[in-house]
Amino acid sequence: MRVRFLPAVLMIPLAAIAAEGMWPLDNLPVSRLQAQYRFTPGRDWVDHVTRSSARIAGGCSASFVSKDGLVMTNHHCAARCVNQLSSARKNFSADGFLARGRAEEIRCPEIELNRLERITDVTDRVKGAIAGLDGEAFKLAKNAIEAELSSACVGTERQTARCDVVDLYHGGRYHLYRYHRFQDVRLVFVPEQAIAFFGGDPDNFNFPRYDLDIALLRAYESGGPAQPKDFFRFSKAGAEAGELVFVSGHPGSTQRQLTVSELDTVRDILIGGLLRLAEERGILEQYGKLGPEAARISENDLFGVENSYKGGLGRLKALLDPALMEQKRKEESDLRGFVASRPALRAKAGGAWDAIEKAQQVYRDIETHYSEIEGAQAFAGRYFTYARALVRGAEERAKPNADRLPEFTDSRLPEMEQRLFSTAPIYPEYENVRLGWSLTKMRELLGADDPFVRQVLGRKSPDQVGAALIAGTRLGDPAVRKALWAGGKEAIAKSDDPFIGLALAVDPAARAIRKRYERDVESVVQKNTELIAQARFARQGTGAYPDATFTLRLSYGEVAGWNEGGRTVAPFTDFAGAFARDTGVVPFALPASWHAAKGKLNPAQRFNFSTSNDIIGGNSGSPVFNRSGEIVGLIFDGNIHSLGGAFWFDGRTNRAVAVHSGAILEALEKVYGASDLAREITGR
Amino acid sequence: MRVRFLPAVLMIPLAAIAAEGMWPLDNLPVSRLQAQYRFTPGRDWVDHVTRSSARIAGGCSASFVSKDGLVMTNHHCAARCVNQLSSARKNFSADGFLARGRAEEIRCPEIELNRLERITDVTDRVKGAIAGLDGEAFKLAKNAIEAELSSACVGTERQTARCDVVDLYHGGRYHLYRYHRFQDVRLVFVPEQAIAFFGGDPDNFNFPRYDLDIALLRAYESGGPAQPKDFFRFSKAGAEAGELVFVSGHPGSTQRQLTVSELDTVRDILIGGLLRLAEERGILEQYGKLGPEAARISENDLFGVENSYKGGLGRLKALLDPALMEQKRKEESDLRGFVASRPALRAKAGGAWDAIEKAQQVYRDIETHYSEIEGAQAFAGRYFTYARALVRGAEERAKPNADRLPEFTDSRLPEMEQRLFSTAPIYPEYENVRLGWSLTKMRELLGADDPFVRQVLGRKSPDQVGAALIAGTRLGDPAVRKALWAGGKEAIAKSDDPFIGLALAVDPAARAIRKRYERDVESVVQKNTELIAQARFARQGTGAYPDATFTLRLSYGEVAGWNEGGRTVAPFTDFAGAFARDTGVVPFALPASWHAAKGKLNPAQRFNFSTSNDIIGGNSGSPVFNRSGEIVGLIFDGNIHSLGGAFWFDGRTNRAVAVHSGAILEALEKVYGASDLAREITGR
Repeated sequence: MRVRFLPAVLMIPLAAIAAEGMWPLDNLPVSRLQAQYRFTPGRDWVDHVTRSSARIAGGCSASFVSKDGLVMTNHHCAARCVNQLSSARKNFSADGFLARGRAEEIRCPEIELNRLERITDVTDRVKGAIAGLDGEAFKLAKNAIEAELSSACVGTERQTARCDVVDLYHGGRYHLYRYHRFQDVRLVFVPEQAIAFFGGDPDNFNFPRYDLDIALLRAYESGGPAQPKDFFRFSKAGAEAGELVFVSGHPGSTQRQLTVSELDTVRDILIGGLLRLAEERGILEQYGKLGPEAARISENDLFGVENSYKGGLGRLKALLDPALMEQKRKEESDLRGFVASRPALRAKAGGAWDAIEKAQQVYRDIETHYSEIEGAQAFAGRYFTYARALVRGAEERAKPNADRLPEFTDSRLPEMEQRLFSTAPIYPEYENVRLGWSLTKMRELLGADDPFVRQVLGRKSPDQVGAALIAGTRLGDPAVRKALWAGGKEAIAKSDDPFIGLALAVDPAARAIRKRYERDVESVVQKNTELIAQARFARQGTGAYPDATFTLRLSYGEVAGWNEGGRTVAPFTDFAGAFARDTGVVPFALPASWHAAKGKLNPAQRFNFSTSNDIIGGNSGSPVFNRSGEIVGLIFDGNIHSLGGAFWFDGRTNRAVAVHSGAILEALEKVYGASDLAREITGR
Repeated sequence: MRVRFLPAVLMIPLAAIAAEGMWPLDNLPVSRLQAQYRFTPGRDWVDHVTRSSARIAGGCSASFVSKDGLVMTNHHCAARCVNQLSSARKNFSADGFLARGRAEEIRCPEIELNRLERITDVTDRVKGAIAGLDGEAFKLAKNAIEAELSSACVGTERQTARCDVVDLYHGGRYHLYRYHRFQDVRLVFVPEQAIAFFGGDPDNFNFPRYDLDIALLRAYESGGPAQPKDFFRFSKAGAEAGELVFVSGHPGSTQRQLTVSELDTVRDILIGGLLRLAEERGILEQYGKLGPEAARISENDLFGVENSYKGGLGRLKALLDPALMEQKRKEESDLRGFVASRPALRAKAGGAWDAIEKAQQVYRDIETHYSEIEGAQAFAGRYFTYARALVRGAEERAKPNADRLPEFTDSRLPEMEQRLFSTAPIYPEYENVRLGWSLTKMRELLGADDPFVRQVLGRKSPDQVGAALIAGTRLGDPAVRKALWAGGKEAIAKSDDPFIGLALAVDPAARAIRKRYERDVESVVQKNTELIAQARFARQGTGAYPDATFTLRLSYGEVAGWNEGGRTVAPFTDFAGAFARDTGVVPFALPASWHAAKGKLNPAQRFNFSTSNDIIGGNSGSPVFNRSGEIVGLIFDGNIHSLGGAFWFDGRTNRAVAVHSGAILEALEKVYGASDLAREITGR
């Protein structure tokens, strides 16, 4: 099927495009698509899209793009792997990476890829298990039924299957998602960071944009390339302005169905989080100025911090926007009015909002302790993460599956083991900086006289405590971690590793504050939000989409620019624009490879484009495709207005940002000499 | 007169102590003092307190404590001078400083001391000059009348007199303050930073506390010690719990009379400011880890950043407190109701709140550009500050006094010249870090494509631009600055200094955004806030105190602890407590001098204490004294609850924190061997 051609005058987007919604693939807005676009996604189409899509367990989306298991995602989704495979001598982040043949493809130490295979509605099972329960009992029963369901779902295929129970509509529905699990995922190609993230932090979340934010990985099974039955075909032409396009991916989380009291809490806690990120950013920026190796070691964390910071700031601006809160208050008041008008509903759900508001107060009171101690913000860096996994893993694995903390249930262990046994290098000096700083923040946030702070620091300074821990630990060695994991409780008890000692010492306090949170906040909110979800169903049916849950969703939209304070932003950029924006200085320096290839490149080749699809963090790496299921682009960002999308969708300005499929092929062939890969993708 | 003794049981403070108010000394709450404490401050008492009090022009308070011009303030108020007089070889911050005799007293390069001499009501003159004017005309007329009034007030005594027109009640009243100006102020004594700021940032704004946050300076006139007629006497015994105590000082600014729309703006802009401070803190923390000299060079800025951060965070928490905003909304609604009910008042002031709210929207739109460009946040460090003063000074001084920007009027020039000609050292490498970072923030905040950003950076990176400026400048040499200042416009035009070039290049944009701010925000807010002030006078008379304006105010209160979540905080700490809190590690390490003197010190000597006085930033260095005008303490902080004092006064928990007068004498005599100073202070 050929794409429609629209004359330039139609490129000006409509005032508002009704593209709202991150739709589960078993609940698509079929009638809307038919009415608006005369398109009805058939069963085969949906199944094909589902099986051609994938997620990276750490928090990204991806897609299969060849019969030999080639996987496309963003550079920034593979950047951690790229960094882990680099060293002072070979810097794949700076220089890019291209495997010349299968033998040169390198396994990423910590990437797990999941492909959705089946969705089962388990609402009755879960609801039956938690009916009538409150607080801790509610939480334990929910953990148990979820462990039981996912374990039965995985069966004996622990290494290749993964099952998660997903709360949709904040507990309105429970679905069991079964995935194929790939843990042997290898790096095939990344361009230089300079073009993957051209414009750097200043251009992040902005558009026009000129980024080749792509990584190609390959999923392996039993030592050879996976042979997926389903994968996306590639369109070199891409899509035209106004054309209907889809995005299938795994949006991480949205807060569109939160109550007003929850949004107030989100706002205040977000401020604290942003302040922490801002200071951490300063630490990492200045650390990176020690030299090129320090910069290389810290660049991935700095990107993560800056990305979270800018994204969080956008969300905060939305929450400080009186118009948003006004709308939320009105929606809530309307729904409460509806509930109050139906006696049966009122008896059940009338008190839900107040109960949630009360739980918010508890949450505000304990949040800092929760984040520092159970959230382990006090103990930044890799060592403590390992130590806690080992200490808790030993204790939890000794229990029956249903009684464990959810992150240690059978279905989740392979992911944890992959991270725990990772061969990625650790840099003790850098760990020192991060740990010393996080301990200092702990003292600041909890207070020098807090009992937990006294327990951790004693009469030493945060830097002294951190340095002593790092000087004494052997957890940097994966073999040591493997032995401790295998040795279980006995090995942990015998260990004299200072980080194991620390993780053991703080575990009672951590478990206590976690229990308090689960009992007095999480359970209360879950129970009552479920009641609100029931009220919504009663009022408007289940035609609405649920908040994002890092599960597969489809969004539809159009290739479209937008209107920015009276100025029209066109939906496409091109290669010529990238060269025009090049200053030769980071982050606006095109790599040497692009300058070398300039004569061969088509300057009019479309590079990046914006669409009205409704996406959010987690959608990074999602394919953009047309009605025919042909990839026309690769999502890598949203514009600055999309950040408020956590709380509402403003179709006038909310835009997704993607790499054009044609730009990917053109760059592979003409800049990187990767014609084999281009051929594999296009199936020629 | 002897202080009262109260049994311990009375040390528990009342639920709320009616100590609110920062009272101008010509408008004291006489009847309240009489009713509550049977104390009436007589004319002589008030005059004596006024003439014994002082301010440090940079933003602190102080007091005269001997007939030979000895001046007491906080260590942290003199820390900049201490840092400027130090070098890699002699570190007075680490080691403290004690002049053995007058010859060893060293002049502080940038301290100007002001002692209030006279207050004149010039309300009619100012109001007459601005009557009927709007926008730019309003602002220019106000500048002109203030320049004229202050110039006439100073007369020919420019070097020894200073006059400022002060807006009280946000324009409800205009008073002309005449000060004696001391620019020859010498360092006499500071203890080690380790005891001046024992507990460091973790204990800042907290209590119990154990800080000897004192500096002794001496005001000189004509090369010899000043001989003030008035100075405070010292009480070794101090004050008892429950005793009436006064604080005379210069609270910098409060926002208690702001409208709700202004408070919303303050909140949102404060968030942005805190995020900037948090990142800057990270930069400075990590820079300081380069080594002891880097730590020494940056410590003063780091203290400033951390202090502003913690203080701002406290203010933000207050603004996010629903109870505060609820009260503010109620107050505003009541006053608006009152105005609406009086036709004449309604005609005049009925639209004031809406006009202010509209101006807030303009302010929000331009604030980032205003702060970066006119506020010079884009150009951190000393060089640009000098360059702008030189460039603008040349242009402004060529104009008649009444037509100049206010900071260049005759009455203000001596302070500017003192700073411009300062002999304080500059560290180019450190300036490099600060400037590179602030230029990076400019690009982030204004956007890489902003015309101003493009003008400043061209095709270079922020670090490149900063480094080139610093490599080429000669403004680090005070003689160069002096010559450019003396040479006026011609010298500036001829200069090839890159910072002069930058300051010239950005001045049109800076003046333009300043004009926009003054015309569309400041003038609108001033005119309309004045109308609201009139409405308040009509409703409740002029018995209320005006918001703080960094002018002399008296606050009264009691020595008192408070109730902290059910726990009683006692109002006194002692020397024994300091030794108990010592861990030997910064910031909880007592200096060697204290350990050496431990045997001689009375462990029960009271060290710090808390009072219910209503103070705010700027009060640092204020004397605490009893009815007899004897100093019983030295204000150096407020507790964490006092931070909300910017917006309201909560007498239940808002506490000022002071060094006990007896601790000062004990330490001078027994730790520092400064018996001469102790004798001078006690007049023995």
